[in-house]
Amino acid sequence: MKQSVTFIDMSRRAMLSALAVLPALPSVFPTSALAALADNTLPSWNDTASKKAITTFVERVTKPGSSYFVPEAERIATFDNDGTLWAEQPIYFQLAFALDRAKSLAQQHPEWKDKEPFASLLKGDLKGALAGGEAAIFQIVTVTHSGMTTEEFENIVHDWITTAKHPQTGKPYAEMVYQPMLELLAYLRANGFKTFIVSGGGIDFMRVFAERVYGIPPEQIVGSSGKLDFELRDGKPVLMKLPELNFIDDKAGKPVQIQMHIGRRPIAAFGNSDGDLQMLEWAKGGGGVRLALIVHHTDAEREWAYDRTSSIGRLDKALDAAQAEGWTVVDMKNDWKTIFRFGRE
Amino acid sequence: MKQSVTFIDMSRRAMLSALAVLPALPSVFPTSALAALADNTLPSWNDTASKKAITTFVERVTKPGSSYFVPEAERIATFDNDGTLWAEQPIYFQLAFALDRAKSLAQQHPEWKDKEPFASLLKGDLKGALAGGEAAIFQIVTVTHSGMTTEEFENIVHDWITTAKHPQTGKPYAEMVYQPMLELLAYLRANGFKTFIVSGGGIDFMRVFAERVYGIPPEQIVGSSGKLDFELRDGKPVLMKLPELNFIDDKAGKPVQIQMHIGRRPIAAFGNSDGDLQMLEWAKGGGGVRLALIVHHTDAEREWAYDRTSSIGRLDKALDAAQAEGWTVVDMKNDWKTIFRFGRE
Repeated sequence: MKQSVTFIDMSRRAMLSALAVLPALPSVFPTSALAALADNTLPSWNDTASKKAITTFVERVTKPGSSYFVPEAERIATFDNDGTLWAEQPIYFQLAFALDRAKSLAQQHPEWKDKEPFASLLKGDLKGALAGGEAAIFQIVTVTHSGMTTEEFENIVHDWITTAKHPQTGKPYAEMVYQPMLELLAYLRANGFKTFIVSGGGIDFMRVFAERVYGIPPEQIVGSSGKLDFELRDGKPVLMKLPELNFIDDKAGKPVQIQMHIGRRPIAAFGNSDGDLQMLEWAKGGGGVRLALIVHHTDAEREWAYDRTSSIGRLDKALDAAQAEGWTVVDMKNDWKTIFRFGRE
Repeated sequence: MKQSVTFIDMSRRAMLSALAVLPALPSVFPTSALAALADNTLPSWNDTASKKAITTFVERVTKPGSSYFVPEAERIATFDNDGTLWAEQPIYFQLAFALDRAKSLAQQHPEWKDKEPFASLLKGDLKGALAGGEAAIFQIVTVTHSGMTTEEFENIVHDWITTAKHPQTGKPYAEMVYQPMLELLAYLRANGFKTFIVSGGGIDFMRVFAERVYGIPPEQIVGSSGKLDFELRDGKPVLMKLPELNFIDDKAGKPVQIQMHIGRRPIAAFGNSDGDLQMLEWAKGGGGVRLALIVHHTDAEREWAYDRTSSIGRLDKALDAAQAEGWTVVDMKNDWKTIFRFGRE
C-alpha cells in the first residue's frame, strides 16, 4: 500500500513538473487520468467526515485564485509523533529503548544492583522501576541518553530500532506506525506542504528513523533535547550529549519550539493528546482556513482505546477544545480501514 | 545579474525534472546547451583558485557513481550572515536597528534621559552609548527585542529594513548583500543543496528578510535567540518575546545549534570570522570531501579591509586554521568582480 501511494505521489509530482515546463503538452494527460489519481487519495481512510475535512482543507489552500489559497512556502504542517504517527502503548517506545539500553549498560554499573530505579529494572520488575514516577524515568533517560557523542547515540538507537520488537504485537517498533497517517503525510507533501514532527520525544532519537519511516528529514524534526557540548577529542570535533535538560517540547513548549525551529505558524497541526493542545491552538489562531486534527484512540481490538484518564497520551482538555472549536477528531475505529503499516494489504 | 542567474537555475531545474520523467527526450537538449549553462556559473566571481575550489567541490559531490558522491538529502550548506552574506561595518546592522528602535522608544521612557547607555544615545553620542561594552549593548538589544509578540517584532523589523539606509553608502541595508554570495547560494541550490544561515545574529530578526533577500526560508535560519512564552491574550494565542537570553549562536555554539536545528553535519560551511571557526571545523571533520570557505575582507575601496585586529568580525584564529588546514580563503579584492548587489551590472 505504502509503495503504491509513494509511487503515485512521485508520478504526480513528476507529471506536474513536466506540465509546468511543457505548456503545449496538457492534452497528453487527459483529465480522466487526473481524476483516477484523486480517487486514490488516502486509500486507508474510510469516506467519513474526517477524510472529507482533510481533502476539503487541502483543496481550498492549494486552489490558485481561491480566497483561501496559501503559497507553497507557507504550507507548514506539524505532527506530534507518539500516538499520532506511531503507537505509544503500553509505554512510550523511547522509554522502551531507554529500559533496554539501561539493562545492557548494567555490567558497567555494578552499583546499580542496590540503587533504584535500576535495581528493580534489573530484577525484571518494570512496575517497581517506574514506581518513582518522573524522577525515576528522568534518571533512566539521563544515563541512557548522555555521556556519548551524538554520532555514537545515533548508532545505539539505530541498532535498537532495527532489532527490538514490541512486547505485544511482536512487530518491530518502526512497523507500528499508522498507515493512514503515512498516506496523509504523503498526500500533504504531494500538495506542496512541508511536513514537520513536533514531539515531546527526543529530537536525536526520532531523527534516526524518521526519514526512512515517515519521509521526514532530520532538519524537519522538532523535539525535546538535552544540552550539547562541542569538544575536540583526539583532535577531532565531536558533540557530546550532556546529562542536562535543554528543552521539553510539550504543551506550551510546542508553539515555542515551532517558532524557534520553523519560524512560521503551521496552517495544519495533528496531535492526539493534551500535550498537543497549545500546538493546535497556535495553528488555528492564524488567519485564513486552518486544519486542527486529533487522532482519538477508539479501537481496543486493532490498537488501544484510551482518552480522558490514560496516564499515557491523556486526551481530556484537548478533546473538550476540539468539540467546542469544531476541530477534526479522527475516530480510529470508524475512520481508518487499516491501522498499522504492518497490517496493510 | 541576479535575475538571470535565478532564471537559469529555474530553467535548469525544470529541465532536469522534465528529463527525469521523459527518458526518451534527451536529444531535444543538446550538450552544447548544457555547456552554455555551465559557463554562466558564478558570473561575479573571477576565475581564480577560490571559484575553482567551489566548482570542483560541487562537481565531485554531485557526480553519480563518484566516490565523493553525496545524496541530495545530505547536501547541507551552512552560511554565517554578518560579513559573509551581507556587510557588517561600521557596526552590525542588527545593532543599527536596535539603536534606531531605542531612539524611537525614548518618548515612552522619560527616565532614559538620565540613564546610560540611553542618555548618550539620545544625545547622538554613539561612542558614549557603546562605551559600556557588551553590557550596554545587551541593555539596548533587550529593550528593543522583547516585550512584544513575535508578530509585532516582525512588523517592526520589516518597517525598519524597508526604510533605513546605511550611513556610509546611503543604500538600504538589504542591498548591501554580496552579489557573489547570492550567486553561490543559487548555484548550490541548483545542485541539490539545502542552504541554511547559521549566524550569531538574532533568529527572528534575520527571518524577516532572509527569504526575500537570500531565498532562504525561515525554517532554514539558525541564530541567537531570546526566550519565548506562549500566552493567551484576549483569548488569542501569542508568543511573547521575553527579556531573557535563550542561546548565543556563536563560536562553539554554532555546531551545537546546527545539531539542534538541522541534525545533520554540513558538508560545506561558509564564514568570515573567528566566530565561524568551530562551524568550519565541524563541517570539515566529517568523512568524504568537504568545503570550508572564509570570506576575507581585503577591499578597502569597494568594501572594508579588516581581519586580525578588528573589533567587529575579527578574523585571526580562523585565518591561521584556514592556512594550516588548506581551507578556501576568498580574497574579496581579487576574487570578486562585483561586491554588492547594488553594484551589479
